[in-house]
Amino acid sequence: MRIDVFATPVGLPPAIQETAAVMIDVFRASTTITTALASGARCVLPVTDVEQAVRLIEPYRSDEAVLGGERDSLRIDGFALGNSPAEYSRDAVAGRVVVFTTTNGTAALAAIAGARRVLVGCFLNLAAVAAALAGEPDITIVCAGNAGRFSLEDFACAGALVARLAPRTTQMGDGALAARAVWRSLGRSLNQNLLATEHARRLSRLGFAADLELALRIDSIPVVPQLAEGRIIL
Amino acid sequence: MRIDVFATPVGLPPAIQETAAVMIDVFRASTTITTALASGARCVLPVTDVEQAVRLIEPYRSDEAVLGGERDSLRIDGFALGNSPAEYSRDAVAGRVVVFTTTNGTAALAAIAGARRVLVGCFLNLAAVAAALAGEPDITIVCAGNAGRFSLEDFACAGALVARLAPRTTQMGDGALAARAVWRSLGRSLNQNLLATEHARRLSRLGFAADLELALRIDSIPVVPQLAEGRIIL
Repeated sequence: MRIDVFATPVGLPPAIQETAAVMIDVFRASTTITTALASGARCVLPVTDVEQAVRLIEPYRSDEAVLGGERDSLRIDGFALGNSPAEYSRDAVAGRVVVFTTTNGTAALAAIAGARRVLVGCFLNLAAVAAALAGEPDITIVCAGNAGRFSLEDFACAGALVARLAPRTTQMGDGALAARAVWRSLGRSLNQNLLATEHARRLSRLGFAADLELALRIDSIPVVPQLAEGRIIL
Repeated sequence: MRIDVFATPVGLPPAIQETAAVMIDVFRASTTITTALASGARCVLPVTDVEQAVRLIEPYRSDEAVLGGERDSLRIDGFALGNSPAEYSRDAVAGRVVVFTTTNGTAALAAIAGARRVLVGCFLNLAAVAAALAGEPDITIVCAGNAGRFSLEDFACAGALVARLAPRTTQMGDGALAARAVWRSLGRSLNQNLLATEHARRLSRLGFAADLELALRIDSIPVVPQLAEGRIIL
């Protein structure tokens, strides 16, 4: 098993399309998508722009589909749900299609949509994603980052996944080695370290501190969201 | 003092032009440039393409200037010097202009050439570069990377510089936090860890193992190469 990690989806090499790819956006898209599907959403439809999301939901009744996502971290005008995982309860999403757009996560998904497999990973489903990747010869973990910049929480989570897969790994790229080193260095005081990241501080200021705590609950939701024909399903 | 680290020069935000920037290419451009200037080269002229290098050297006598650099890690046809720091002895370069082109390092320099200050850093001159940055309000460390990909050795070296500057730092970006975590995790067994990187393995296979050992000699050359009007000088 070969494994590598990219700190952002900018400038990904074409070869990753041959691999099993995992998108990680800890704060908060991966965490929210994982929560929504565990709460019984029929699927999550990731779209990159708001107008497209609004157009996609038009044919549905309100008990069939729901709009979710954020811009500048805040719920979008006219959307029922924002990007807080706690909003994606069974009451809110069970049996429904979630049409979903966020700043970094859905763009990262679009960048790897052509890969052989596309999974959505976060701290909540680390063990489940690691198990789903067993036997894959070539794995690429792509961090969503923050508007093209490094996100420490995504890179640390990627490193945690690398560490879980390490016993089966025969070759690690430099990104994987670095991410694992970050995880080893920061993982022992995970909450303290990851609540200090750029994105975490911004979300805290905006009143989303509860989302951050929730996003760091390792192995709390054992499901594996995967992209299939443009929809994310279990 | 604010500090951030970028793992590659791809997609740098325009704001870094307001900062003091450090380019790091451990294997090998930063190390070679530092060595060349410490050996008495008048200056290093970094150029991004081979034809430009050949054109630039034409007006000079051979005791006035010398061509150095690599493509695919190897000395370029017709160039006197490759990219091995040990080649840049006093005999080879003292008193001469070194016209220099490499795959990643000179491209990274070009990407930050507009910054307020541009320094060249590596393990050899860590302490000297840290001292030169004292009092800077805003520092950006840009890793050359490897053809747009992550290079563990550059990121670890950036982390070592962040660690040296940490006592004066009031704000670290996520890239700086991650690089410091990598340094803390890998720095204790530096040679073992950095001789296993993608680029190090490639250079070893090509017969450049001695260059790698040399590039990891921390604080062995206390000089600070800096870009001034297109030339790198001390």
